[in-house]
Amino acid sequence: MKGNDHINTLYEHGTLASLMAGNMAGTITVGDLLKHGSTGIGTFDGLDGEVIILDGEVYQAVSSGHVNHVTDMAAKMPFASVHQPADLTKLDLSTVDFTSLNGDFVHQHELGNVFAALHLTGTFDHVKVRIAPKQEKPYPSLLEVAKGQPTFTRDGVAGTIIGYYAPDIFGSVTAAGWHLHFLSDDRQFAGHLLEFNAAHLTGDLEIFDTLEQHFPVADQAFRQGEVDLATLRDSIAQSEGNHQ
Amino acid sequence: MKGNDHINTLYEHGTLASLMAGNMAGTITVGDLLKHGSTGIGTFDGLDGEVIILDGEVYQAVSSGHVNHVTDMAAKMPFASVHQPADLTKLDLSTVDFTSLNGDFVHQHELGNVFAALHLTGTFDHVKVRIAPKQEKPYPSLLEVAKGQPTFTRDGVAGTIIGYYAPDIFGSVTAAGWHLHFLSDDRQFAGHLLEFNAAHLTGDLEIFDTLEQHFPVADQAFRQGEVDLATLRDSIAQSEGNHQ
Repeated sequence: MKGNDHINTLYEHGTLASLMAGNMAGTITVGDLLKHGSTGIGTFDGLDGEVIILDGEVYQAVSSGHVNHVTDMAAKMPFASVHQPADLTKLDLSTVDFTSLNGDFVHQHELGNVFAALHLTGTFDHVKVRIAPKQEKPYPSLLEVAKGQPTFTRDGVAGTIIGYYAPDIFGSVTAAGWHLHFLSDDRQFAGHLLEFNAAHLTGDLEIFDTLEQHFPVADQAFRQGEVDLATLRDSIAQSEGNHQ
Repeated sequence: MKGNDHINTLYEHGTLASLMAGNMAGTITVGDLLKHGSTGIGTFDGLDGEVIILDGEVYQAVSSGHVNHVTDMAAKMPFASVHQPADLTKLDLSTVDFTSLNGDFVHQHELGNVFAALHLTGTFDHVKVRIAPKQEKPYPSLLEVAKGQPTFTRDGVAGTIIGYYAPDIFGSVTAAGWHLHFLSDDRQFAGHLLEFNAAHLTGDLEIFDTLEQHFPVADQAFRQGEVDLATLRDSIAQSEGNHQ
């Protein structure tokens, strides 16, 4: 157990509620984001692709399936989460998929009411990802975008899963449950993880005692956006792939 | 407008969801809380009263109506929010009540999607507060407690309102809309604000770009607590007085 003076922080910029309302313009630079962590996930201006950040390097899967290594620190993102790995619980998992992550794993590590980061590497028997296509103004809703986004599959691929678990009560702010991205070891295949299975993966889990939620308060679209709370949770779950 | 490197932070320990589930034991000391701000609101171990923190001094209204000046830095709280006042927008308001705060005020300052702190002082024509009575284990739900809590009124009282505005999408985590506490200038009358009106109040507003949400991850009751998301928002609104 940790003392109160020791802090494990997940930094999140923006909210899925605001993305859902169509505020897809970038509001934080890659450079500013990386000040808060070396590892994470997100998307670029206009919902341009799926981002995975590993050891301070930023990779962007775009909707053609291509993966860019992003080095422009001025590029902007509307939504992203990062952390600095620390106090890791080592993992050695057999027969892993979303079903096992959602079942025994969540129960065993008592994740239900906390934010946590998952990092898993190994050879995957099967991986299916989706990649959000870049949108132009006037931006549609995230739900509209989700209906038409391309998916890609790969079998027998070595790679890494990075992502987060969020408690149910934050399901209007971010994706409740697991929100995971994938990057292959050869950096040629990546995206938002929809399905996977692997016989054996190793990695680590970090449980956060602090969520540092950052809002783009200077952005007029964010300040004036109207959120439809009645449909928000379902829309987020639908657009993020229903992994809960 | 502020740059990305300037941060206004609201620090919140615990969640109303966890209180609602009956986890009312204190999980942060007053001393640790005050490291994160000089101004704020909260409650003590066992939901013992209504706390208002002003200039680093901690006042606790207990259910008899008495107000304690708390100097025990080891006393524990299950839920509290504090901030360090900065970048204040000065306020000079006429004919103020919850209706005006919920209407023009929220619209004018574009509070809908942000966290903000409100600080108002002056002479109040009328104030009605409620004070949560201390609970013993096994703790009931917050909603059960809310049904039987005493209320107090005072007319023509000089005092201070301190509290926060939270966006709708955080209504499962904390109280959506206004969550305000009151403390009289003579420190003899305080509580969770249910009604008020005043002809003229002055004070200030602070808009936060960051919510630092802290979770008691070492607390087993918190980790294992089950949240009933279907009824949570309504239960919170009901127990916090429906000020939205």
